[in-house]
Amino acid sequence: MPKREKTRIKPEREHRQIASAKLTEMGREVVKDIQEVRPPKLRIPSRSTSNIIYDEANRYFVLGPRYGVRSAASIKQVKKFAQFLCTADFAKKLIESGKFATLREMYYTAEGWDAGPFSDQGESDMIIEDLEATFGLKRENLGLTPEEDGAAVFGKLMVNEDGVVIDATKAGRAGYTIPPTIDDVEFLKCKAKRVIAIETMGMYHRFVQEQAWKKFDALIVGLKGQAARATRRFLKRAHDELGLPIYLFTDGDPFGFHIAMVVISGSAKLAYINHELAVPDAQFLGVTASDIVDYKLPTDKLRELDVARLKQLMKDPRYNTEFWQSEIKKMLELGKKAEQQAFSKYGLSYVVKEYLPAKLGLKS
Amino acid sequence: MPKREKTRIKPEREHRQIASAKLTEMGREVVKDIQEVRPPKLRIPSRSTSNIIYDEANRYFVLGPRYGVRSAASIKQVKKFAQFLCTADFAKKLIESGKFATLREMYYTAEGWDAGPFSDQGESDMIIEDLEATFGLKRENLGLTPEEDGAAVFGKLMVNEDGVVIDATKAGRAGYTIPPTIDDVEFLKCKAKRVIAIETMGMYHRFVQEQAWKKFDALIVGLKGQAARATRRFLKRAHDELGLPIYLFTDGDPFGFHIAMVVISGSAKLAYINHELAVPDAQFLGVTASDIVDYKLPTDKLRELDVARLKQLMKDPRYNTEFWQSEIKKMLELGKKAEQQAFSKYGLSYVVKEYLPAKLGLKS
Repeated sequence: MPKREKTRIKPEREHRQIASAKLTEMGREVVKDIQEVRPPKLRIPSRSTSNIIYDEANRYFVLGPRYGVRSAASIKQVKKFAQFLCTADFAKKLIESGKFATLREMYYTAEGWDAGPFSDQGESDMIIEDLEATFGLKRENLGLTPEEDGAAVFGKLMVNEDGVVIDATKAGRAGYTIPPTIDDVEFLKCKAKRVIAIETMGMYHRFVQEQAWKKFDALIVGLKGQAARATRRFLKRAHDELGLPIYLFTDGDPFGFHIAMVVISGSAKLAYINHELAVPDAQFLGVTASDIVDYKLPTDKLRELDVARLKQLMKDPRYNTEFWQSEIKKMLELGKKAEQQAFSKYGLSYVVKEYLPAKLGLKS
Repeated sequence: MPKREKTRIKPEREHRQIASAKLTEMGREVVKDIQEVRPPKLRIPSRSTSNIIYDEANRYFVLGPRYGVRSAASIKQVKKFAQFLCTADFAKKLIESGKFATLREMYYTAEGWDAGPFSDQGESDMIIEDLEATFGLKRENLGLTPEEDGAAVFGKLMVNEDGVVIDATKAGRAGYTIPPTIDDVEFLKCKAKRVIAIETMGMYHRFVQEQAWKKFDALIVGLKGQAARATRRFLKRAHDELGLPIYLFTDGDPFGFHIAMVVISGSAKLAYINHELAVPDAQFLGVTASDIVDYKLPTDKLRELDVARLKQLMKDPRYNTEFWQSEIKKMLELGKKAEQQAFSKYGLSYVVKEYLPAKLGLKS
């Protein structure tokens, strides 16, 4: 795969200034409408399935051209309209104070609003997604963060968090934890030449223990299963800002494949923000169906659920490449799956000493 | 609650020497039996429900006096006997090499044994528990670690991990992550006066953002739901070695109560090792049923499952105190539960500025 040119990424402060400016502009328009005795309206990109399109050029899902209109003049819409403005106001205050709140806190905060509380968190989350889609900005830039931390990182990377410098080889053997507010973190120095992102923490600790970070000049990233938003953002920044190739190492089963694919090509659900999260050049290392055969790995039988999922993946546009089609077909033929840790059959170090260099093409 | 005297905790190196010595002794006895043409036997404490007893004095579950015997002379037992010895051998090599392996790696390693592979991981886990119970040692001391990392810690604590010094105010805003191998970590310096352990990461980040660690001289610990083994061990060491009182802050529902209780009194399943994990003096801060009333918190209705669980807890010996009995009764009467983040109704800082000092008795 040809190496892409480095893209300049907007630093977070700029992101937040843009968010603040967009919120202000929206507020001004609403006020102007009211002053000119016109019912204010908002145009919000539609996130319905029919408006989610796979973008072949960018290699991820994006939103299509359809919009919905939310009007203060409609009895049916006026409450949502008011809640939307209160949410925008809450976000603006967060940006101004430099604070962050979780989606859950935002939901409970609404208990005190004149626009009335939300009936469940689904409602308030929806409005935040409306805001994200309207501005093409991540909610993190609006001061709204996920609950969970991101992945663990171990390797030669120095970051700056509000003046605190952290060395990701010296934050403990569990590594540096990607915070929910990763966009605020500045990459100061990176001596690593690649990123190896790993599905399970068991294998992550194996890689750290065997010093794979040193041997392969790599940042070792422990995904903890499906990658959190903050992790995906970190991987995208490592790729775009630091110019590092990203390799993904997961279990050899449909769920492992999809953990890799969501990093590579994003999800349909987040079509409105994939341009900030997807890393289309990230490469899947394994465990592939071919690895299962080549390395004679201990396996488990595919369950019914696995087979159904694999057949689903075959039809998914993100898997429409020769590599994926042939690997999925092979796994279905084998009727077997294998976990990352299955390499322990050959000893604890095997995966780092033999498998990894072979897959990275670094074997002498 | 009167402050307990500090207990001297064996440092890990000592733990591992003990483990190694016990493994050697067991091996010698087996060899001696063979040399003297006696079929070797192993006495293993029974972990069946009928042998799990609540110890009123220690305030946690322990194993009773019953033992099982595993004999190499029994056709039915000989495979398990051999696997037990192979596992002990694997553990001994781990200790000698200073390495760690996960339970999953150990399961796959057995693929290469003469004693034959395990038919599923349940079998190999069982043998490791046999080893733990036999020696009264945690499997971590045998080089076998859990997959998952422990909690996040933020506050004035300096630790030493193999010569790397980590300051838990400078490991990033996501905090210092407790590694699976926490017993290997040396506490170098601690200026905190208490530990506040929190169920959800959303609230953990709120506490860090509002500088609760500074305002309350506290180590803020983000449990990430049910506390991992490494987290429980960390809390026990913080209490016993550093003499810090431990406070627990969870959601106000039966699952939150039990997250706190497992830290306090351990689980029945781990009866054989609760003496290394339970912190009977840890105190539950809330959210209590009384808090729901006193703070007029936004609530959700108790579901059927919650009611059943609360009734179960009422009969559990660990909850047999005036405080718990009255709080559980109150919650059942209210028919409501509340989350930690419900305090956001009064603003994002309220929980740190008002609720916490009131509960800690620090309010002026």
